[in-house]
Amino acid sequence: MRTLARAASMQSQALSWRRSGHKIALVPTMGSLHAGHASLITRARKAVGPKGQVVVSIFINPTQFSPTEDLASYPRSERSDITLCKRRGANALFLPRLDEIYPDTNNVPFSTYVTEERLSQSMEGQSRPIHFRGVATVVSILLNIVQPTHAVFGEKDFQQATIVRKLIRDLKFPTRLVVSPTIREPDGLAMSSRNTYLTRRQRPHANILWRCINTARKAVRSRTTALTAPMLKRKLTRMIESTPEAELDYIEFFNPNTLIPLRRIQRSDRIALAVRFGKTRLIDNGKL
Amino acid sequence: MRTLARAASMQSQALSWRRSGHKIALVPTMGSLHAGHASLITRARKAVGPKGQVVVSIFINPTQFSPTEDLASYPRSERSDITLCKRRGANALFLPRLDEIYPDTNNVPFSTYVTEERLSQSMEGQSRPIHFRGVATVVSILLNIVQPTHAVFGEKDFQQATIVRKLIRDLKFPTRLVVSPTIREPDGLAMSSRNTYLTRRQRPHANILWRCINTARKAVRSRTTALTAPMLKRKLTRMIESTPEAELDYIEFFNPNTLIPLRRIQRSDRIALAVRFGKTRLIDNGKL
Repeated sequence: MRTLARAASMQSQALSWRRSGHKIALVPTMGSLHAGHASLITRARKAVGPKGQVVVSIFINPTQFSPTEDLASYPRSERSDITLCKRRGANALFLPRLDEIYPDTNNVPFSTYVTEERLSQSMEGQSRPIHFRGVATVVSILLNIVQPTHAVFGEKDFQQATIVRKLIRDLKFPTRLVVSPTIREPDGLAMSSRNTYLTRRQRPHANILWRCINTARKAVRSRTTALTAPMLKRKLTRMIESTPEAELDYIEFFNPNTLIPLRRIQRSDRIALAVRFGKTRLIDNGKL
Repeated sequence: MRTLARAASMQSQALSWRRSGHKIALVPTMGSLHAGHASLITRARKAVGPKGQVVVSIFINPTQFSPTEDLASYPRSERSDITLCKRRGANALFLPRLDEIYPDTNNVPFSTYVTEERLSQSMEGQSRPIHFRGVATVVSILLNIVQPTHAVFGEKDFQQATIVRKLIRDLKFPTRLVVSPTIREPDGLAMSSRNTYLTRRQRPHANILWRCINTARKAVRSRTTALTAPMLKRKLTRMIESTPEAELDYIEFFNPNTLIPLRRIQRSDRIALAVRFGKTRLIDNGKL
């Protein structure tokens, strides 16, 4: 496995792969890799085949954190990240420093941003105002550097994956989006680098998001008539309120393509929610 | 010369060229081609050599026009445009319809925009608020469709070229910007598709922009000490005010890299100005 720190080296390697007809899969991460990321790397290999090139990028992207968020404390584990990428058979690890991604040019600071203006208004976009502008910008930069035929994102960040798909289609990047299923702990908690923030007292309750998804799913599937969102939201809110240390940020029911919030809920729809445990904010989602 | 109307066909042609190691030069235009565009095509050929592929795109991009501007009346001359491209030796003409560039996807309207937030604040950005967002967005889309190694822009739109260079560097498009000199009528008027709007009475006065640039240049070059912008602006404003039918929009003196307006002017700096003749708005610029 090659490790590359420079954007220019990574890009010329990628362009040379493309000239030789290689498929390239990009797995963009912020490091602190866990079994969820490992499954993305495996999915990437499946997408491009044994002769394809799998590139994992590790970059904690400051433009997707607002000043009050956890940029400074975001977990870092570079050595074990490198080991995990090697073991999973990645061909290259792209590990740029901040000024490789956001350099000044001709004395002018970085100043070009990509924004998605519809799908990014609800849920995470509402709770984290500049978040998706940062995501769309860094994803565009990584797509241009790594020139992937396939980009692999986790379904755990469902709204992010939907926005990246829209960005790829709107701006016509020659890249196919691959969305890979959420990997869970035995009790249902979705794998996330932020799970390491949870205290020993909080951890046993952190699967409340998964329990809410399942409760909603059962409710929708056991009904022959459509359920209403306010009804289900009340029920799930009570479940969260009765969970020690848990505080609800949002619950939303939405159409999976348009992300438009729904009042009447059917089996083809989706639920997403965000819950805080102290300073730790967890998200999860599922099909109903 | 091939003519392509579909973004998907253009992109797969471009990707196939790139796999075969071809250089590709893109000349993005809004049609109504004149000698200025012809020189861009010649410059594109020089950039990629006889074996390279020169692609001219013709697309009147609605997102760079505000509702009060001349989108509906913008001149169109598709047949003579095609002839000009053929004669100048272009390999392909990309002629997409509106819904090829800005389609709905999964029932969601086009919603991803690229914005440059520093260089686009002054001059044209101030006079035409959404203009550069539209330019940056459509240029990003065209770069992804045509996959050019070189993109050729005219120096006449100096601020636009500077913003496109910044966009390419910030977002790391694997494309080199080539800026080609302004082509002028014998009296100095810069070639522009909008010159066709000028009435017979207005036309003889339309070289006032060129005369202003030359007056400023002479003033700067004849001085051993720095001139101040307000002094020169007053002089040029008087020249424009005494020109029949001409109305000043702006005059600016700026650093060519940062586009920051200057008070003290030196030979390495640049002037740009915009002047209206009735509804027709002309721009020009030059090195001092």
